[in-house]
Amino acid sequence: MSPDAPQLDLAGDPALLTEQLIACYSVSGEEAVLADAVEHALGALGPLTIHRDGDAVIARTETGADQRVVLAGHLDTVPLPSAEGSRGTVPPTWEVHDGEDFLYGRGAVDMKAGVALQLKLAADLAQAVSAGQRLERDVTWVFYDHEEVEASKSGLGRVVRTSPELLEADFAVLLEPTDGLVEGGCNGTCRLRVTIPGVAAHSGRAWMGQNAIHRAASVLAALEAYEPQTVDVDGLAYREGLNAVSITGGIAGNVIPDECVLEINYRFAPDKTEEQAHEHVREVLRSAGVSDEQTEITDSSPGARPGLDHPAAQDFLRAVGGDPMPKYGWTDVARFSALGVPAVNFSAGSPLLAHTDDEHVSAGQIRDCYIALHRWLVRVGP
Amino acid sequence: MSPDAPQLDLAGDPALLTEQLIACYSVSGEEAVLADAVEHALGALGPLTIHRDGDAVIARTETGADQRVVLAGHLDTVPLPSAEGSRGTVPPTWEVHDGEDFLYGRGAVDMKAGVALQLKLAADLAQAVSAGQRLERDVTWVFYDHEEVEASKSGLGRVVRTSPELLEADFAVLLEPTDGLVEGGCNGTCRLRVTIPGVAAHSGRAWMGQNAIHRAASVLAALEAYEPQTVDVDGLAYREGLNAVSITGGIAGNVIPDECVLEINYRFAPDKTEEQAHEHVREVLRSAGVSDEQTEITDSSPGARPGLDHPAAQDFLRAVGGDPMPKYGWTDVARFSALGVPAVNFSAGSPLLAHTDDEHVSAGQIRDCYIALHRWLVRVGP
Repeated sequence: MSPDAPQLDLAGDPALLTEQLIACYSVSGEEAVLADAVEHALGALGPLTIHRDGDAVIARTETGADQRVVLAGHLDTVPLPSAEGSRGTVPPTWEVHDGEDFLYGRGAVDMKAGVALQLKLAADLAQAVSAGQRLERDVTWVFYDHEEVEASKSGLGRVVRTSPELLEADFAVLLEPTDGLVEGGCNGTCRLRVTIPGVAAHSGRAWMGQNAIHRAASVLAALEAYEPQTVDVDGLAYREGLNAVSITGGIAGNVIPDECVLEINYRFAPDKTEEQAHEHVREVLRSAGVSDEQTEITDSSPGARPGLDHPAAQDFLRAVGGDPMPKYGWTDVARFSALGVPAVNFSAGSPLLAHTDDEHVSAGQIRDCYIALHRWLVRVGP
Repeated sequence: MSPDAPQLDLAGDPALLTEQLIACYSVSGEEAVLADAVEHALGALGPLTIHRDGDAVIARTETGADQRVVLAGHLDTVPLPSAEGSRGTVPPTWEVHDGEDFLYGRGAVDMKAGVALQLKLAADLAQAVSAGQRLERDVTWVFYDHEEVEASKSGLGRVVRTSPELLEADFAVLLEPTDGLVEGGCNGTCRLRVTIPGVAAHSGRAWMGQNAIHRAASVLAALEAYEPQTVDVDGLAYREGLNAVSITGGIAGNVIPDECVLEINYRFAPDKTEEQAHEHVREVLRSAGVSDEQTEITDSSPGARPGLDHPAAQDFLRAVGGDPMPKYGWTDVARFSALGVPAVNFSAGSPLLAHTDDEHVSAGQIRDCYIALHRWLVRVGP
């Protein structure tokens, strides 16, 4: 274990554990110290099998229960607020608003509160197993690195490639911030570049050219008129969106533009494969006179079905309460979904505060989420 | 006179004089040596009054003729072709194609052939005056600096401000390249910036925003559907054009764009004032739902009527022959037009070769233009 790694206190308040985790710097690529601390704390619990893969740590109960569930979260954060200056931990701070305690600091919502919940529940379950209590479902804890950077570096993606068997489960919960609600699955996303050609000419002799910007009118009109669907998937309503996110054209104030380039982003419900989504966008573009040769897919990630009809998910929903919501942004639930493991997001903290300089989380919400998850995982009794 | 200034030979072939002028480097801002050479050559002719204003040289016959005409041309060129490397004259070269002599070099068409014609005709007229010949029309020669750069630096603009009386005339010929045809007047030009607002949002929650790029659809459709007019002015048909010359929008692949900015260029016939032209564009934009507050005029220059109905212009047309054409690009004829002096473009060289690395002019066409202008200006007989 790194000499810098803090001794994590898994026995106390999960909000104080969150404070300890925020104090341990772990910007993407520099998760080693925190991964060491997590590995050490889990190892000290006793009845867990522990795997280390780079800066990912996987811990499992192995009691032979009928079901297995995953609780997963990433250890890394985006960089510190630039105002804080050089590398180093940001000391988390407490503030009281309307009589409620709030914890401020990088990662407060994304997602050290979630990691604290994972660790606290690992300690509870290890204690239950040691006490001879039968588990209704075994648990796999996954802590991983490099979530906040390009997908190719993802620690979870690496484990999927190297040890997929460690991730096998009936259901997974990703402890990304959801403000204490269950958010199921996620929309897929793809980007297409559309190139509209023209013929350059001096703008004083415009009839010698063809204006590529003018020719984009039909595409923009098709996007403007497009009515995005809301698709019911496993009982959740996924709102789609088809949007131009960029347009550029023109090289000088006296030249008829010979090219106009559009970037289009399609957020599609998880009832569609990526291929179906790409084809749908091409269909819309064809109706606006754009041929397939003019379009290029520049980015694509599949969606994830919420899988809320699975018995393990039903148990989870009953235990944590509240109405499940669809997740609109893309998260790592899609990786579990691709492995055949239905997954949801659930944890403390507002997702709207993620990556902001003002990131903060309510201590009360951390404790509420803890109680809900404890109710689900730790059956009281022999 | 600068010791570097060449001794210009006004007595010989105007094509060889063009060669001498090309050999004298005069990129915008560095016209002094050529202006010195021109002033010196004109001074040596005798019966001309000569004014120097910076690097502009104005020479006038003062014989008390009923009419006065201007022959004007700029001394400067655009920079040398980049392949030629550092500062210095490009030695002009001769090539023979299909038995015809062509002169290659920076300024060959734009517009040292024109300047050569001005100088050669000045020598002819000075000789005629010295010989006691009566002139049908007095002539003002205007050689000026800084035509190829921003309008605020224009040497002709400076003379208009400081000594407008020197430019008074019944008619003006600008010796810009026209391939030996008469090109009358010019279209005006204006540019408007149109800002289309939206509301930013994450593209995964597009319904929280308003897509500014999509909202540009109606503007582009209006421009696409717009049918530019062809307007008859004083017997010449001016083709107009209304074109988007630039479009930009979008800040990231996952953000609904909150702004889309279009630049629109209107080339308008010289029957319209600038104000009428601006109002016409605003009218088109209003029909597409764009308010006047969203548009800003970023650039504007008036057109110039050809003035071909003036007796001096009629005499000129008869003398040089051929059917007059409208000029589509903006030239300094507009400055004369604003002074109340009808003006046309006429000289050797294809305007399409101006500013190209391959600039060249036919010696035969220089001589033909010389003969045509000589026929107009120098009446044979006492």
